[in-house]
Amino acid sequence: MSTAAWGATAPDSGMAPLTIERRPLRDEDVAIQITHCGVCHSDLHTARNDWGRTKYPAVPGHEIVGIVRAVGAGVTKFAVGDRVAVGTVIDSCRTCDACTHGDEQYCEVGNTGTYNGTDRIDGSPTYGGYSADIVVAEPYVLRVPDNLDMAAAAPLLCAGATTWSPLRHWKVGPGTRVAVIGLGGLGHLGVKFAKALGAHVTMITGSPSKIPDAELLGADEVLLSSDKDAMRAAARKFDFVLDTVPVRHDVTKYLFLLDRNGTLCIVGMIDMMPELHTGLLLGGRRAVSGSGVAGIPETQEMLDFCAEHQVLPEIEMIRMDEINHAFERMERADVKYRFVIDMATLAPAA
Amino acid sequence: MSTAAWGATAPDSGMAPLTIERRPLRDEDVAIQITHCGVCHSDLHTARNDWGRTKYPAVPGHEIVGIVRAVGAGVTKFAVGDRVAVGTVIDSCRTCDACTHGDEQYCEVGNTGTYNGTDRIDGSPTYGGYSADIVVAEPYVLRVPDNLDMAAAAPLLCAGATTWSPLRHWKVGPGTRVAVIGLGGLGHLGVKFAKALGAHVTMITGSPSKIPDAELLGADEVLLSSDKDAMRAAARKFDFVLDTVPVRHDVTKYLFLLDRNGTLCIVGMIDMMPELHTGLLLGGRRAVSGSGVAGIPETQEMLDFCAEHQVLPEIEMIRMDEINHAFERMERADVKYRFVIDMATLAPAA
Repeated sequence: MSTAAWGATAPDSGMAPLTIERRPLRDEDVAIQITHCGVCHSDLHTARNDWGRTKYPAVPGHEIVGIVRAVGAGVTKFAVGDRVAVGTVIDSCRTCDACTHGDEQYCEVGNTGTYNGTDRIDGSPTYGGYSADIVVAEPYVLRVPDNLDMAAAAPLLCAGATTWSPLRHWKVGPGTRVAVIGLGGLGHLGVKFAKALGAHVTMITGSPSKIPDAELLGADEVLLSSDKDAMRAAARKFDFVLDTVPVRHDVTKYLFLLDRNGTLCIVGMIDMMPELHTGLLLGGRRAVSGSGVAGIPETQEMLDFCAEHQVLPEIEMIRMDEINHAFERMERADVKYRFVIDMATLAPAA
Repeated sequence: MSTAAWGATAPDSGMAPLTIERRPLRDEDVAIQITHCGVCHSDLHTARNDWGRTKYPAVPGHEIVGIVRAVGAGVTKFAVGDRVAVGTVIDSCRTCDACTHGDEQYCEVGNTGTYNGTDRIDGSPTYGGYSADIVVAEPYVLRVPDNLDMAAAAPLLCAGATTWSPLRHWKVGPGTRVAVIGLGGLGHLGVKFAKALGAHVTMITGSPSKIPDAELLGADEVLLSSDKDAMRAAARKFDFVLDTVPVRHDVTKYLFLLDRNGTLCIVGMIDMMPELHTGLLLGGRRAVSGSGVAGIPETQEMLDFCAEHQVLPEIEMIRMDEINHAFERMERADVKYRFVIDMATLAPAA
């Protein structure tokens, strides 16, 4: 079926309306009328081919929330009218060790991205959530609990999953001393999640202007990374540091903050990590790690947790035709803290 | 008391006989007649001031085995004639979180090195095991089990502790797929320990000539790091990689070997680690970590384990006056796999 969407047709085209095809339902497919879609930095990078592997036309969007419009003959868990969501992965090999352990994000064969991917059956390109509808195989569809706001749920699918998974993997909870570096789409959820999980949470930011915001979000303390005395005083004070900074940076000064056996986990920087002195690792059995989004079971766990504890992203709603401006503002970090597109503002397919 | 020793008096002096003073026994002190001392790379680096912080005269040696010669009034665990050992740490603050958890190697105040350190009470310099006697506070003295060979025990105190601790911390045992990079003093013990702990052990070496040796040491498999096809085939095959390479190197090609949630632990390289792409960490929740020797309880655990399972380092005995030549050979990696000085060859103090 023809579906209205917004996408890019070239690195410099900007975002504009276009029409895409969604496949007829296979037995296991769920057709979803998209109500909301969050705006992720990856959307921007893909639209502009910053990573050199965009296939055009590119329809971004992998923070998708909507209502089931139809289901294939073999679908058992969802029915028309259900509140559902789709994240960054819409298929994977389903048989490797990662997939069979619910770590589809680490599929050893390579998972199928929600956009800029290739359908495993018919080889067609995948298009994301900046569109009216999407068709996704049931095992990759998530349930949005009744008491979770649909619009606010959207950023959970990528920003949320990306911060939730490492906090759970490293067993953050009561008694854990957590620092979250960077107050953006990821960081603000990192603070909220860590706090809701019972940890003592410190927000680390380079900007004094962000201190009140960090406190509003629930941070127990705020540490200015530019304040050398404060950074020195915070040495060895943390068990876990969640580094959400999305650009290349040296982690050395943050490694000093880790207590022995502590881990710094990178979730934002996808780039070369500058050299660092191994003495910082050897001198306290510290680790530098990384984590990429979350698997399907863990994402569902997060959605259920957010509903139960009413942990919600801070969002700014935009119309579909404001997306180019939103990309520009996102590049300036001028958003608190995630744009969500109201897909009701999308014009019908031509 | 005056004690015969060998040490360096300047970066270019080489090693030569000298006489040092050992303090009169304090209440908690154990005086040890040294029978054997292992030769560690750190000894060489300290003698030559490679790290820029050597205090001369420098008497190296922190793989010390001997017999209790006398005890202070307050000593309860050791008696004259006991077989004992001393490793890299002979004192620490004893009150910080690390010390109270048996992680004296990570003392937050800074521990007292067996050599090139400063006594916490009288401020005198510490001198290591290239000497006839040493005086060490009881909490930092280890017991050598009766059925553990005294000479072979020596390298356990540093090379052994350094490889044992991370294997234990990361819970290596039956079912764990371990790779050990580098077949030297540390690496050969890494293979033996991992094997004795029940893991499946692969030795990774750059040299085809080392394959038979690795198999003799008990490695289940040997992987040539120069064989690109073999390295590619080994991708994601390991849960834990113990990196014993003592010089600056890029760990990128080894990170590919880690399965998801795997850890590469650096124990040899004390240097700047070259930049690496974070995608290798994010793409499988992998970690780069480091570990420094072991605490006192863990070192004792290792000695007991080695005695029970007869896991012994491969050693080459040398006379004290062969130390300069041994240093030269060590620099060429011409030793299988650790030199141990027979301290009976030390001439009495002048």
